[in-house]
Amino acid sequence: MSCREGAGAASVPLVTGQHPALNGDGARYDVVGIGNALVDVIAHATDEFLDDHGLTKGWMDLIDTDRAELLYGALGTAVEMSGGSAANTMCGIASFGSSAAYIGKVSDDDLGRVFGHDMRAVGVDFRAGGHDTDMPTGRSIIVVTPDAERTMNTYLLHAADLDERAIESATVLYMEGYLYDRDEAKHAFRHAARIAHDAGRMVSLTLSDSFCVDRHRDDFLALVSDEVDLLFGNEAELISLYQTETFFEAVTELRKHCGFAAITVGAKGSIIVTGDELIEVGVKAVNKVVDTTGAGDLYAAGFLHGLTSGAPLARCGELGSIAAAEVISHVGPRPLVELRTLVD
Amino acid sequence: MSCREGAGAASVPLVTGQHPALNGDGARYDVVGIGNALVDVIAHATDEFLDDHGLTKGWMDLIDTDRAELLYGALGTAVEMSGGSAANTMCGIASFGSSAAYIGKVSDDDLGRVFGHDMRAVGVDFRAGGHDTDMPTGRSIIVVTPDAERTMNTYLLHAADLDERAIESATVLYMEGYLYDRDEAKHAFRHAARIAHDAGRMVSLTLSDSFCVDRHRDDFLALVSDEVDLLFGNEAELISLYQTETFFEAVTELRKHCGFAAITVGAKGSIIVTGDELIEVGVKAVNKVVDTTGAGDLYAAGFLHGLTSGAPLARCGELGSIAAAEVISHVGPRPLVELRTLVD
Repeated sequence: MSCREGAGAASVPLVTGQHPALNGDGARYDVVGIGNALVDVIAHATDEFLDDHGLTKGWMDLIDTDRAELLYGALGTAVEMSGGSAANTMCGIASFGSSAAYIGKVSDDDLGRVFGHDMRAVGVDFRAGGHDTDMPTGRSIIVVTPDAERTMNTYLLHAADLDERAIESATVLYMEGYLYDRDEAKHAFRHAARIAHDAGRMVSLTLSDSFCVDRHRDDFLALVSDEVDLLFGNEAELISLYQTETFFEAVTELRKHCGFAAITVGAKGSIIVTGDELIEVGVKAVNKVVDTTGAGDLYAAGFLHGLTSGAPLARCGELGSIAAAEVISHVGPRPLVELRTLVD
Repeated sequence: MSCREGAGAASVPLVTGQHPALNGDGARYDVVGIGNALVDVIAHATDEFLDDHGLTKGWMDLIDTDRAELLYGALGTAVEMSGGSAANTMCGIASFGSSAAYIGKVSDDDLGRVFGHDMRAVGVDFRAGGHDTDMPTGRSIIVVTPDAERTMNTYLLHAADLDERAIESATVLYMEGYLYDRDEAKHAFRHAARIAHDAGRMVSLTLSDSFCVDRHRDDFLALVSDEVDLLFGNEAELISLYQTETFFEAVTELRKHCGFAAITVGAKGSIIVTGDELIEVGVKAVNKVVDTTGAGDLYAAGFLHGLTSGAPLARCGELGSIAAAEVISHVGPRPLVELRTLVD
């Protein structure tokens, strides 16, 4: 059901509220994710701190080591937790009880060992490949402001070594747009998508960040049109991708290129787009939003868990909302409780 | 006002509710702490996990690398945060607005850099000395059970290089009993106490752990009697030190050897012992106890902040209760808010 097979909405034959056919024949995993393996360094700071350091709230900036040292030195007490967008999603999927593998690269250092432990600890099959010896494990300095918004500054990304066997043997391949900031990743994404499609698997992509989309729009447009069966993103990312005035214009454009998407729309919830319908899904109420880091990652986790479990699409979205609500209710980008216990 | 100068309660001349005279002449710091520089690796687990791994709730065990690997591998997702008992206390003191220095040793690795950052970030003057190159930065694997009790497993402790100038120039020296598990620390404690006393400063010690006291009772007894002007500890530690049946028998013994102590008694609060009186201090109410790690460390922080600020003893205890209440209301051994903002 790759979007390569057609250009219009009618090319994706969906029964209302049903998910597209998935090929789980001989699959070892429900989902395999590819992304930047990162350890998050999380600190609280004021809006003035963002201003003083030229940071724009909600953005993800790529920074070099000097900038990282400067920012880290200026920040208060921090907490270190494993993160990385697709890695968070795979942890969420495992936490729901589905099976997940992860392809990402760390170094043979303290933070690399922390990252590997935290993946294995929740049951994700971490396919690290070899270690890079010449650069430290990637990290993301995350500043949480009193309004619970997170502003990320990421440096030292490693290119992942693709594990073809893992990709072939997962029902869904999930790729993280953030990786696109590395040239070699563009080639790797195409290669991974072809491995998955040759094995009859579904290919999904998350756009990750509207500025990342802006930096690589043409490549993203071509990838979505050529290879992506299921697109994740938020309102701003979709508008950035298609450069439209409104969200619904972007959805119309999207349908010409990819017939299946799950788009989060902040506090309003999410909208599931298929070739012939839009399904609106509400959010799950949270007592207090503490830190929005990981909200989109965990939404994708719930959605993919539902999809690979055979749930109707509206339920897939609800599972996404449940997982997102858990992760924004505390500091840190991964669930603190087993998500399967939150499901009725 | 060293306890060396007398053997009985009458040797400590205190006006009711007043703290003993402190010598802050020419002092650069209010307090200098010496302890194990550690990064805490904090994970949640069940009581069954403790049973399965032969862990006794509330204890601190010293473990070797193999044991650390085994435990860490068995635990779920963890969070890394700077810790170390005396280091936590110095951070609390700085957070109240008093000045603090810290003497402890880390390696030139990721976790060593994390530790150093987190000390400097709250304004503690971190006197790290040189790096040990042959062993990693120490860490403590902390298992938090659903009742919020913490069980600690600490490995790879570094001996601190004493910084004589820092010790001379602090009104109070604060030493952490945990360090006593290293033979060289026993000599270092004596040496540090003599530097402080020669400069006319107050020497304080925290007993840290009843099993640590049990392992080194004779050395602790001699140190308290010879060098300690102000003793911190909890009920169990004091009973372990003097091997009495009851807490009040232990207090009677204590008064023969050291005329000034602040002893926490769990949910009942704390008792301040002077030569001629006992001052009972209540706890500060907490909505929900989440993780008791750091409770004693932060009690000492509040107490020492009060003491060096000239507050009456009962108020010193209250400041201890305020700091302890903050730290047990969240995961992690250090305050998440500036403690000065919690003071009326």
